[in-house]
Amino acid sequence: MKAVELIEKKRNSRKLNKKELTFFVNGFLEGVIPNYQMSAFLMAVTINGFSDQEAKVFTDVLIKSGRQLSFGEKLVDKHSTGGVGDKTTLIIAPIAAALGMKMVKMSGRGLGHTGGTADKLAAIKGMQLILSPAEIKKSLEEIGVCLLQQSADIAPADKLIYQLRDVTATTNSIPLIASSIMSKKVASGSKILVIDIKVGRGAFIKTKKQGLELARLLKKIGRHYRLKVICVLSRMDEPLGINVGNGLEVMEALSFLNGNYDKKLYDLVMELTSQLLKQERKVSYQVACQQIEEVLNNGKALNSFFEIIENQGGEVRNIKISKQTLLINSPKSGFVKKIDAFKIGKLVQQLGAGRLEVNDEISLGVGVVLHKKEGDYIKKGDPLLKVYFDNIKPASKEFLSCYQFSVQKVKEKKVVIAIV
Amino acid sequence: MKAVELIEKKRNSRKLNKKELTFFVNGFLEGVIPNYQMSAFLMAVTINGFSDQEAKVFTDVLIKSGRQLSFGEKLVDKHSTGGVGDKTTLIIAPIAAALGMKMVKMSGRGLGHTGGTADKLAAIKGMQLILSPAEIKKSLEEIGVCLLQQSADIAPADKLIYQLRDVTATTNSIPLIASSIMSKKVASGSKILVIDIKVGRGAFIKTKKQGLELARLLKKIGRHYRLKVICVLSRMDEPLGINVGNGLEVMEALSFLNGNYDKKLYDLVMELTSQLLKQERKVSYQVACQQIEEVLNNGKALNSFFEIIENQGGEVRNIKISKQTLLINSPKSGFVKKIDAFKIGKLVQQLGAGRLEVNDEISLGVGVVLHKKEGDYIKKGDPLLKVYFDNIKPASKEFLSCYQFSVQKVKEKKVVIAIV
Repeated sequence: MKAVELIEKKRNSRKLNKKELTFFVNGFLEGVIPNYQMSAFLMAVTINGFSDQEAKVFTDVLIKSGRQLSFGEKLVDKHSTGGVGDKTTLIIAPIAAALGMKMVKMSGRGLGHTGGTADKLAAIKGMQLILSPAEIKKSLEEIGVCLLQQSADIAPADKLIYQLRDVTATTNSIPLIASSIMSKKVASGSKILVIDIKVGRGAFIKTKKQGLELARLLKKIGRHYRLKVICVLSRMDEPLGINVGNGLEVMEALSFLNGNYDKKLYDLVMELTSQLLKQERKVSYQVACQQIEEVLNNGKALNSFFEIIENQGGEVRNIKISKQTLLINSPKSGFVKKIDAFKIGKLVQQLGAGRLEVNDEISLGVGVVLHKKEGDYIKKGDPLLKVYFDNIKPASKEFLSCYQFSVQKVKEKKVVIAIV
Repeated sequence: MKAVELIEKKRNSRKLNKKELTFFVNGFLEGVIPNYQMSAFLMAVTINGFSDQEAKVFTDVLIKSGRQLSFGEKLVDKHSTGGVGDKTTLIIAPIAAALGMKMVKMSGRGLGHTGGTADKLAAIKGMQLILSPAEIKKSLEEIGVCLLQQSADIAPADKLIYQLRDVTATTNSIPLIASSIMSKKVASGSKILVIDIKVGRGAFIKTKKQGLELARLLKKIGRHYRLKVICVLSRMDEPLGINVGNGLEVMEALSFLNGNYDKKLYDLVMELTSQLLKQERKVSYQVACQQIEEVLNNGKALNSFFEIIENQGGEVRNIKISKQTLLINSPKSGFVKKIDAFKIGKLVQQLGAGRLEVNDEISLGVGVVLHKKEGDYIKKGDPLLKVYFDNIKPASKEFLSCYQFSVQKVKEKKVVIAIV
């Protein structure tokens, strides 16, 4: 078998079998197949696609490139395809713990204009994101949840391929996205998985149609591994919630668990968590929602948040927030019609919250607080947003260019688009 | 400008402008854009194509990556897209010299299953394939023709890109083929160029339709540089002529100029050379054919062959031919229906005539002599072909698998398919 012949086959839209995909991925992992052949292959897949069978086999090859963990039959998990201001993991994890669910959540770092939960957790002083298998087991028994960074020995082939996709414009392939997510989730031993598929101008997936196609494939691959997958398509046009930036998002999660929340963030958290609970506990959607509201109202979820952080050495009273701020007032009176999540994400990244190169040090305290969200009314001169910064001074003009205003009232759009 | 954004544009079938293509190719040449980004880009071009404008601009960028030569206003040239047993350059060059045409022919080495003229010339002992500009000028004045290997400073970006295309299944893209050929020909100063577009199972171009599309684009790019391009589509199903292999093909060229020739090889040589002469001398096709026949019959072309070789230090009586031979007889009586040029090319390459890696030493003396060609009748047990070999012993069975026989007479197919 020759690498160039397999690339040629995919270039011609022909299907590759298990032997061929195994040869290609393993050859790449072993360094026999160079980067430039893998990237040509990935481009051919991105343009010509994979059949469901190929996507399943590709996932399997990625899984088998590393370790496979197992922490119990009811391990729940959640995943987001990436958005701006998405701190749902920081809220759902303590709710899950408060409800007695078991979760070993592995998270990645920020990518492009989107944030990553591992970076957000790093804004908490002392927080350890790597635990030994024994420590994970102990955490599950005592607290129920631990929050980790993606382990290097889980699907290492996916990690290498992902780095290449990021720089070769092959990130938007539905089958490559699906196999990347599922390989990590299957290998880390999840049994019930809710996936938040972000759709919109601030997301990698731009249309509902693509989102539904991704959901279909994710569920299909899940069935193959007896991993129950529920997909929630959610709108990612404006940033999710109020705060964007690593430390700032931890603060918002804390505030949420204290009872102060943005309505859309609340709706999404409820949807994602109730889907997990329904499956884990075999209760109705209504009962699930009631149970979640209970642990939010009685302080148990907040308490779990402290437990999870402290269990991993984090100091909850020591969260990185930049000292310098710039308050930007509204240039006109009217309703906020649009806040461009993609642009906000890029600007926050440029403040230092995101990496341009893999090994960049990032500014964990920078970001923005959005005083008004889509649909809100604002008077000219009133505070629109506040920017937190370190060394790089923000330009008001650039932030204001993310906004559109309207004299008419703006129709409210629900955050949850579909559940599959 | 970012490389990944340009790759993304081409992935989405959008057009790239001059600034973008220049940035990408020059970035690659300077090592700022790595192989893996170039190969993803090349795959996107191979699948999604280039507009004519993009192909023209891409050619221009390749030309400007190196030196541009100029040896006079009527410099003729010929190019073949690559076939098996194609020794036409070795025959056309001396005919051109005998007729007083001027030609600085730069040739490449063998690629895949096809041979390369530079390798064929290397089978002549002492033959120097690199001449200084002053030596080239002197050769043009005294003999009219010199045969060189592709110069390293002509379109160096094309050379680097070509090496990558060869291992990433991106060799069959019409616009990439066209810009690769034209960049070298324009940069080396050709003014009248005949291109032999090989079509068929032994060629990179498989269908007449693709061949015509390539011809159209080659001519269009040529017009842009005032380089007159004539394309001849020729059949490459069975090997061209009788001998396949480096030294063996030089022998066949010599034999041809001595008056012993295979009919189809003769037809193709006449077509290619008369197209050049028609343009260079502004004579009719008939007059051109007469003039060519004259120098073939009166020995002037043969004499030019000796002059060209000796001018570059070659010893015409010292051509590498392997000493060991294997005669393979026909397993049945009947008409030869098919000789698979691709398979023959592969088998001769495996005997040592072609490279598997860029720096491989090759066996210049190995190859085959085909005693019967398509349409010929043969009796069981009569000699079908003779294999010349060095260290690697040929298997009769493999060579016989290249043949198909028929009890019925086989309809003759003309070698020239179309002239554009």
